[in-house]
Amino acid sequence: MAGKYPVSPLAPASFPDLPVIRGASFASIAAGVRYAGRTDLMLCRLVPGTVMAGVFTRSSTRSAPVLDCQEKIGGDSEAGAAIVVNSGNSNAFTGRNGIEATRAVTAKAAEVLGLPVERIFTSSTGVIGEKLPHDRITAKLEELTGMLDEGKLEEAARAIMTTDTYPKGASAEVKVGGQTVKIAGIAKGSGMIEPDMGTMLVYIFTDAAVTRPVLQDMVSTISDLTFNCITVDSDTSTSDTLLMAATGASGVRVEAGDTGFIAALQNVMMDLAHQVVKDGEGATKFVEVHVSGAHSDVEARVHAKSIANSPLVKTAIAGEDPNWGRIVMAIGKSGAQADRDLISIRFGDVLVAEKGWVAESYREADGAAHMKGQSLKISVDLGLGGGVATVWTCDLTHGYIDINADYRS
Amino acid sequence: MAGKYPVSPLAPASFPDLPVIRGASFASIAAGVRYAGRTDLMLCRLVPGTVMAGVFTRSSTRSAPVLDCQEKIGGDSEAGAAIVVNSGNSNAFTGRNGIEATRAVTAKAAEVLGLPVERIFTSSTGVIGEKLPHDRITAKLEELTGMLDEGKLEEAARAIMTTDTYPKGASAEVKVGGQTVKIAGIAKGSGMIEPDMGTMLVYIFTDAAVTRPVLQDMVSTISDLTFNCITVDSDTSTSDTLLMAATGASGVRVEAGDTGFIAALQNVMMDLAHQVVKDGEGATKFVEVHVSGAHSDVEARVHAKSIANSPLVKTAIAGEDPNWGRIVMAIGKSGAQADRDLISIRFGDVLVAEKGWVAESYREADGAAHMKGQSLKISVDLGLGGGVATVWTCDLTHGYIDINADYRS
Repeated sequence: MAGKYPVSPLAPASFPDLPVIRGASFASIAAGVRYAGRTDLMLCRLVPGTVMAGVFTRSSTRSAPVLDCQEKIGGDSEAGAAIVVNSGNSNAFTGRNGIEATRAVTAKAAEVLGLPVERIFTSSTGVIGEKLPHDRITAKLEELTGMLDEGKLEEAARAIMTTDTYPKGASAEVKVGGQTVKIAGIAKGSGMIEPDMGTMLVYIFTDAAVTRPVLQDMVSTISDLTFNCITVDSDTSTSDTLLMAATGASGVRVEAGDTGFIAALQNVMMDLAHQVVKDGEGATKFVEVHVSGAHSDVEARVHAKSIANSPLVKTAIAGEDPNWGRIVMAIGKSGAQADRDLISIRFGDVLVAEKGWVAESYREADGAAHMKGQSLKISVDLGLGGGVATVWTCDLTHGYIDINADYRS
Repeated sequence: MAGKYPVSPLAPASFPDLPVIRGASFASIAAGVRYAGRTDLMLCRLVPGTVMAGVFTRSSTRSAPVLDCQEKIGGDSEAGAAIVVNSGNSNAFTGRNGIEATRAVTAKAAEVLGLPVERIFTSSTGVIGEKLPHDRITAKLEELTGMLDEGKLEEAARAIMTTDTYPKGASAEVKVGGQTVKIAGIAKGSGMIEPDMGTMLVYIFTDAAVTRPVLQDMVSTISDLTFNCITVDSDTSTSDTLLMAATGASGVRVEAGDTGFIAALQNVMMDLAHQVVKDGEGATKFVEVHVSGAHSDVEARVHAKSIANSPLVKTAIAGEDPNWGRIVMAIGKSGAQADRDLISIRFGDVLVAEKGWVAESYREADGAAHMKGQSLKISVDLGLGGGVATVWTCDLTHGYIDINADYRS
């Protein structure tokens, strides 16, 4: 589907310059899995000593590649590792064929790279329920191995796209004990995006040296504050995968609780998460929903997600309508606690409603002016306690229907 | 908004002939609450001895009229009762003004009808968060009282419409102990429809004599199987109200467990519920989602709702795409238990998938043919246990965006 729809108006002006992460090399190729005339297969090789961590969809119908990654992610090896990703076919709900296809791809990659099969991680993204033509992938792995290059991360970001309208990358550099470590990541995703890592693939690399428990803890914690706080359409994919690889090539050791590294990693993950929302199918507005004053952070998030997932709120945003009544509706239906007469609502800095009704100072023109922006903020204070949460989403437009009512996108 | 959008292609050919329910009389008028050139206020008077029961939205931000009805519904009186409904303004999230408006309307109605204020039930439907111009309503109540007529139920169904594209009515006659009792009901609703009675107003009348506890139990139980099993957009209104009035005018007593009466009432309520879905904003397909083989009925309903509310499933249906992969996705994200490799899926009678993959017998053309129909059935068997549930919904189309991205619909 890539290229079929116009680039999101929320897309960054250009793909960022990503630093080389020593120890991680990449290659991409057109394997013809489903799409014609574009790359759809990427290989990443990681040097011996690389530590891997991952976060995966919680769907009960997850795909064979996800199950395979989950089995392997806890393992350790000094041998190095590899990641193989194809777009066009998700190899999900493909029964026994799914496992066989994953085995074929990982076995061939292990063979050509000289790695144990336990260190080959794969992801597949695209249509669900169709048999993965894995021979088209295995046929290209040897050629890909010969093309591996530390400077080819941007090309990898392009190869993993499905309905994405632009490739997504982000990076950071941070001093740890006076020495520089680098982080760079890529992501894909634009629909089927909700809580638990909706159709999203994310690969993050660092040259820091980090132990597996520390890396896994950082990735899990930060995912919960970034990728798990975005939503496009409340649909959760069967294939979502985030893999992080720490090659250690910088020789700089990062320990648990290293604030600088954690902040830098969070910036990269948040940046990628926001880019995924900004490529939400049909999106024309990027919306931050901030809820405070809830009984707990968990309750705040329930309210924020209820607002961010409401089709009526999302269509009002598409129509640039400061329709705060629909915000009230979404709070009311969330199931989390709210007292109608304590709620206050702001669009940007404009106080819209307080004490159970429209604010005395509110003028419709002010709310309408905020809604015309491309980047909106909806803040709700519940007046009950100290719970806070922030969630990011986009609007619901004709573009979403165009893309998804299309026969088998 | 009424009349602005074309009549739903799923609408019944014509409004049904509703029987007169003796003891219940109706009048409608154009009060100019918000809409021009149409009726927007209806009054129903119920004879002394009428028993009332009700079911209301569980939204935590419910409107003043809903809170007022909930306070009154448990009361009993031999004096009779009345229902006043306006469209155009929901009197929801209107702070202290909301209570004052409800008090003004109920007080005036009590005065002109000679009834205790505790027996005046009101509903308001329409835009949220704007002050209800209650003086326009009270100004018409005396005139309405003079127009009351047992034959004017259809007009009442028209007066309560908002974005509805057609008025909704249903009826039944049933023999109880050899004597005939009649049931007739009207409803409105087309968006903000989910579980707990999404923007829906329903009024049902019978000339049977039923005690309050029995009537309330019947209405609550059947609501859970009918109105609480439909969903248009997963959004739950602040104003949903179902009121049922048993006038007793037939002299025929209905007792708890009267199977014939219960079945007749369920038919009327199911008919109205289906009519609400068929008027779902932008709907072009009526979809029954049946889930069996779940661990429990509750888990079956969670899966069915997850399928029926998934934007990706609903857009696929709009596109007539037999995209069963999205059904698998929706099962996977629901949170209820599923084993990917035990799931089977049917579109109509066509077995699409079984044992974790596409069925051997399945031909895409058969699935595609079913999707071209106007009334679709998606059946999922989870293969885990005996839990079953059925939910009704519609597709998600450009029409929904048109209606809801419109400034302040």
